[in-house]
Amino acid sequence: MLSDVTSEQVTAALRTFIAERDWEQFHTPENLAKSIAIEAGELLEEFQWAPEFDADRVRLELADVLTYCYELADRLGVDPEAAILEKLEITRRKYPVEVSRGRSAKYDRL
Amino acid sequence: MLSDVTSEQVTAALRTFIAERDWEQFHTPENLAKSIAIEAGELLEEFQWAPEFDADRVRLELADVLTYCYELADRLGVDPEAAILEKLEITRRKYPVEVSRGRSAKYDRL
Amino acid sequence: MLSDVTSEQVTAALRTFIAERDWEQFHTPENLAKSIAIEAGELLEEFQWAPEFDADRVRLELADVLTYCYELADRLGVDPEAAILEKLEITRRKYPVEVSRGRSAKYDRL
Amino acid sequence: MLSDVTSEQVTAALRTFIAERDWEQFHTPENLAKSIAIEAGELLEEFQWAPEFDADRVRLELADVLTYCYELADRLGVDPEAAILEKLEITRRKYPVEVSRGRSAKYDRL
Repeated sequence: MLSDVTSEQVTAALRTFIAERDWEQFHTPENLAKSIAIEAGELLEEFQWAPEFDADRVRLELADVLTYCYELADRLGVDPEAAILEKLEITRRKYPVEVSRGRSAKYDRL
Repeated sequence: MLSDVTSEQVTAALRTFIAERDWEQFHTPENLAKSIAIEAGELLEEFQWAPEFDADRVRLELADVLTYCYELADRLGVDPEAAILEKLEITRRKYPVEVSRGRSAKYDRL
Repeated sequence: MLSDVTSEQVTAALRTFIAERDWEQFHTPENLAKSIAIEAGELLEEFQWAPEFDADRVRLELADVLTYCYELADRLGVDPEAAILEKLEITRRKYPVEVSRGRSAKYDRL
Repeated sequence: MLSDVTSEQVTAALRTFIAERDWEQFHTPENLAKSIAIEAGELLEEFQWAPEFDADRVRLELADVLTYCYELADRLGVDPEAAILEKLEITRRKYPVEVSRGRSAKYDRL
């Protein structure tokens, strides 16, 4: 079952893929940040003219964004899921339940 | 140790955060795709004028992209890491080692 | 000579193109903002792995970004070039010559 | 009246602004492409959670995208409006009226 996979195993698989192709030279943090933005644009294209979407296409585009995110996390020496949880604590404090409930306003306009 | 965290646990933490604030109404797949692109832009801003970067700032911006990616994966009923591995198999076939080694060209220009 | 073209003429050409295809229904401000981000990603792809670029390809990708920008300006009832000059005055005040000369720092870190 | 402004005058104003601050060194084509994507993300943020928008905020964010687009056009030695019209001819051929009328499908799926 794939859901048993750990971040370490995914990162190891990505490292092997990159190393086999000698692509470390291209995958600098700056180029990975560009790649994340490029792939985020392709994901958004699935929703360009309507909110309806093709789940298979969206899943594969999302995977491209995630792949470059995991690679960048690896360059930073960071566990991706630990980074999510670290940031969630910060966001929790910026958006206390009592003031943000049911409101989409940005914290500096709450 | 945070690296023992599973995707399921991260997803559960994000669900609780969203539910407490009654934000499911805003976090549609389309709005999450927009949010991923927006956060990808903020991450890229850390590299706007030079390849040098502040690792702490980059980690926190990357976490924002990852957070919305995990939320979108949850809306799709997909494990994020399984999606990365599924796509890696496809990419592996599009970029065979022998033709892509040391080259950054897109597969349709290899 | 194309450089004699005015914003009004470009906007009129775009309006005709859209109306002939009955596309006004899709080109809402929100969808145009998504389209600008999508095309900005395609433009960035020309620079994904290296600063070197193909001028012809970049020109055509840049044109796509500009096209949706002009359409959005038209929806807002704004002249695109007037908007640039309006914003330039604001930016001029945020980045006084004496403090910003030769520095790429954002105004809030100057 | 601002609508009498020409692309050349806007480009000249941007050149002066950049030269006064000695910013040509930062505004390489690659960095301008990144900047366009970054500002496109900020524009999209105005539509993050709903299609409703604040016209003043959108106009100013759109101006930022346009500004970097005009700068990149200048680096390429291209008139921005000529580029729009050049691309419009190409797009016209990819989307003939008879097959694209009232449909938002991409040309390769028409």
